[in-house]
Amino acid sequence: MENRRPLILVTNDDGVDAKGIKSLVEMVEPYGDVVTVAPLHVHSGMSHAITVNLPLRYTSIREDGNVKVYGCTGTPVDSVKLALSQILPREPDLLVSGINHGSNASVSIVYSGTMAAVIEGCINGIPSIGFSLLDFRPDADFSASVKFGRKIVEHTLKNNLPDRTCLNVNIPAVTPDKIKGIKVCRQAKGVWKEEFDKRQDPRQGEYFWLTGYYEDHENGAEDTDEWALRNNYISVVPVHVDLTNYKALDILKGLNYE
Amino acid sequence: MENRRPLILVTNDDGVDAKGIKSLVEMVEPYGDVVTVAPLHVHSGMSHAITVNLPLRYTSIREDGNVKVYGCTGTPVDSVKLALSQILPREPDLLVSGINHGSNASVSIVYSGTMAAVIEGCINGIPSIGFSLLDFRPDADFSASVKFGRKIVEHTLKNNLPDRTCLNVNIPAVTPDKIKGIKVCRQAKGVWKEEFDKRQDPRQGEYFWLTGYYEDHENGAEDTDEWALRNNYISVVPVHVDLTNYKALDILKGLNYE
Repeated sequence: MENRRPLILVTNDDGVDAKGIKSLVEMVEPYGDVVTVAPLHVHSGMSHAITVNLPLRYTSIREDGNVKVYGCTGTPVDSVKLALSQILPREPDLLVSGINHGSNASVSIVYSGTMAAVIEGCINGIPSIGFSLLDFRPDADFSASVKFGRKIVEHTLKNNLPDRTCLNVNIPAVTPDKIKGIKVCRQAKGVWKEEFDKRQDPRQGEYFWLTGYYEDHENGAEDTDEWALRNNYISVVPVHVDLTNYKALDILKGLNYE
Repeated sequence: MENRRPLILVTNDDGVDAKGIKSLVEMVEPYGDVVTVAPLHVHSGMSHAITVNLPLRYTSIREDGNVKVYGCTGTPVDSVKLALSQILPREPDLLVSGINHGSNASVSIVYSGTMAAVIEGCINGIPSIGFSLLDFRPDADFSASVKFGRKIVEHTLKNNLPDRTCLNVNIPAVTPDKIKGIKVCRQAKGVWKEEFDKRQDPRQGEYFWLTGYYEDHENGAEDTDEWALRNNYISVVPVHVDLTNYKALDILKGLNYE
């Protein structure tokens, strides 16, 4: 750590006015100078989308105590890019994203704007952590997230993170006294099974609402994030920005495509 | 392989009318019954975005020979979800996405709608391959992509792919006779450096166009996709849908968050 206070970038995908991002600011405020740069509106399910066909704008929208809050017209990843390139006075010492209203455990990470912002930070060499609470409600109780999240933030500021690795932290929707601890896990195998809700518009045209349910493919393995969460542990999955499957690399190199 | 002809799902992020998707159909047509389900319009940079706040529609828009072509109002991942759940008569034996007009090598994979569709197929247990040509032009020459892509498709239909692994295939923008071969590689380390283009609207408001350049962090390592492409090889990166960094898992388990 340098002598000056750490600079901490806060973002999310539920927008600058979500309760979750305010709780996230509360979580990290003791540890440094905090700047929030987040989408002006909800961007759930945006994953790592970037805005290439429209221009972007950002605007200073308020100061919460010492915390400067900027809103951006784009996606979570756009917000991170604008923050790093245009808004922050220097490279931040930490990026935190969330607290998401709803789980980003298991395969949900690939759809998540919260975690895309974290991965974007990590690609840029910044220690980056995403927090998600297993409660979709706008007025969800983030007290356990704030309390235990601080332990993870403190640890990360002190010890940094492994190379090209960020953290996907999920928190069970229970009060702090029910939390059994923090568990480092792997991403559970599973899939979202689609159940499109098929409807008719007033002109007899068909349309579909995307819906579905999570199907677990683990048979109760205890080293996964889904198991940890079901058992009231906070799950911490180290996420790699290198998507290469190195085991598969050896298998495929043995094949001959010619 | 079963006795019936394989069912092959074709998708992309440049939209049903892109030259690249027509070349992709040409590539896979000899190997099975082909159904195209792709966005009606360009969806570059959409990554793994899904549409949750708007309903989706799809429509049969043409038959190219024996190939049925459907257009979808949503993103590439929406298209795959609709195809698997609503449009196809059964689970496909292969999903191919592209041919993208432009590279998806190295870290570009995380922004790519082409590769998100591939990852979505892989999450659903379908052998899935993404193809991208290093040429952004609408009239790019896909002849080398078609010729060499067939070798990879044949191989995959015969041998399948390793567990929870899909392929990110990139093709240099040269004629078939210049291609040196097909190389299995890892994803190169690198980052897109932002250079926002700052402008003023007629009302003195500031806005920004996202732009940038790719910065390589590899120092010439020869086992990467970027090296292969610079040296006129087709790059094949096996991509894992499990984002856990297993090496970091051991490091973090040694820490004590309590």
